[in-house]
Amino acid sequence: MQIEFLGTGAGMPSKQRNTSALALKLLEERGTFWLFDCGEAAQHRILHTTLKPKKLEKIFITHLHGDHIFGLPGLLGSRGFLGGTDRLDLYGPAGLAEWIEVTLRISRTHLNYELAVHEVDGGTVFEDETFRVEALPLDHVIPCFGYRIEQKPLPGKLLIDRATEAGVPKGPLLRELKEGRDVELGDGRTVRSADVTGPPQPGFSVAILGDTRFTPNAIELARSADVVVHEATYDRETAHLAGAYGHSTILDAARVAREGGAKALIANHISARFLPEDARKLAEEAEDLFPFVEIAEDLSEFEWKDGQLRRLP
Amino acid sequence: MQIEFLGTGAGMPSKQRNTSALALKLLEERGTFWLFDCGEAAQHRILHTTLKPKKLEKIFITHLHGDHIFGLPGLLGSRGFLGGTDRLDLYGPAGLAEWIEVTLRISRTHLNYELAVHEVDGGTVFEDETFRVEALPLDHVIPCFGYRIEQKPLPGKLLIDRATEAGVPKGPLLRELKEGRDVELGDGRTVRSADVTGPPQPGFSVAILGDTRFTPNAIELARSADVVVHEATYDRETAHLAGAYGHSTILDAARVAREGGAKALIANHISARFLPEDARKLAEEAEDLFPFVEIAEDLSEFEWKDGQLRRLP
Ligand SMILES: [Zn+2]
Ligand SMILES: [Zn+2]
Repeated sequence: MQIEFLGTGAGMPSKQRNTSALALKLLEERGTFWLFDCGEAAQHRILHTTLKPKKLEKIFITHLHGDHIFGLPGLLGSRGFLGGTDRLDLYGPAGLAEWIEVTLRISRTHLNYELAVHEVDGGTVFEDETFRVEALPLDHVIPCFGYRIEQKPLPGKLLIDRATEAGVPKGPLLRELKEGRDVELGDGRTVRSADVTGPPQPGFSVAILGDTRFTPNAIELARSADVVVHEATYDRETAHLAGAYGHSTILDAARVAREGGAKALIANHISARFLPEDARKLAEEAEDLFPFVEIAEDLSEFEWKDGQLRRLP
Repeated sequence: MQIEFLGTGAGMPSKQRNTSALALKLLEERGTFWLFDCGEAAQHRILHTTLKPKKLEKIFITHLHGDHIFGLPGLLGSRGFLGGTDRLDLYGPAGLAEWIEVTLRISRTHLNYELAVHEVDGGTVFEDETFRVEALPLDHVIPCFGYRIEQKPLPGKLLIDRATEAGVPKGPLLRELKEGRDVELGDGRTVRSADVTGPPQPGFSVAILGDTRFTPNAIELARSADVVVHEATYDRETAHLAGAYGHSTILDAARVAREGGAKALIANHISARFLPEDARKLAEEAEDLFPFVEIAEDLSEFEWKDGQLRRLP
């Protein structure tokens, strides 16, 4: 799983940071990627990545401020042009469906794929055999959500020798067992997957939060998550502004990660006031509270592999 | 007057060409600039120019396809943030007002300036003492307009010696006469502006056309214009596609400029199929029909001065 930041700015776009959008790449897991927020020019940023819009499966919107949604219509249209024919699911607060309907109608944008818009207000917003996504309301100036993406436990490792002892021949049956399904041998005996595989492997969990003040629900979403993506619009000096505008400081983000027992924190939604070089200072402010802090940059990418988060070069 | 192209592409944005938007800079004439079409990320392109969104006075939309309007909400919002408090007039086809209303409401975008949306269907869409803007319907797949901007005749040059002979003292009275107003001298005599100034100077005229097939109305708008900006989505080889999709070839654009008796043609809305190097070939195709052809590039700028159009370096 990789997290690729398309826009890490707060409010207006600047040359260094575009408006909010991040891609959760699940190419190994599902052969698709999901988008969290879609600020203006998200599709322009995608041009500078290896992301293929036709592989975009789901879009989750945290709240309806322009810097989180104004890139939606253009991307939805382009996904069709670029050969996207599979269904796309779009999740977000009430009002999103009306805006999308009016926008596509007025601009005569005809999608050659099914678009399902789900207006969320909390709880489980998506679930299938391998993933579940929960939403909880946060504390911003308008309704705003955080999302927790959980990969369900993976079947344990296949114990080859045990399987051969049990008479399982090389070939497809081994794959069935590896994927957690019992099999029947030629001689009618049944081999149970659980008997020839190691213990189930825990999946990863990621909390991707929208704009918010420090709030218990953020801690809830971050509960022992492998990665938390939390806004850090303000810093120690400008902390007094955070509350009024419904935002957080880097310290709030660190507290959420710490109290949630998360493994890593990536701070985004960084105000244009902070130039990339200031990012170092921002991280330092948070480190004494929570040591595993990264400051997101546009087009920065992080990979979660073998239980470890590392920043890709 | 300068014309600065922010986006010169057709349909989807590419790395070389953004979606449609161009700035008509009237800084000397009115201290403002006007925008024609506002595709997604127009405000991002503006960051790479000297244009100040608070100086944006008017926006003219040719038609409601996404690649011509999806940059509007973001720019309208940013204009307010960047200290724009003067009224902004937005002109475009029916449906624009509804989309802007719904978009600003749903995204809680509060403008700290007056926004007046005018749904045009042709004729004079704006006029004051110094400028008039006419619109005519073109021939695209949805309602689409072309705009003709005419600068009204400028008062003639002040003939200083003639004014001094008439007893006009140095100072503000000379300025009044220069700007076409008669004055009263200390001794009660009246000096008529027309008597001490040269003949009125003709203003410039520019035709900025939306997506269209070859159409007589385009020629009408281009009638002896100093500059015509016409789309050229297709070329000789792909000409067969033009009609079906409601577009033109570079040859259609050249014919409009020629039959309209215009002085110069700038082709824009260039398909991503044509890389910047191909632009040379595009221009050559048109030159035997109309010699003064330029192919617009993103961030290319043209200046109209002393009756001459030249490309700024
Ligand atoms: Zn925001
Ligand atoms: Zn177009």
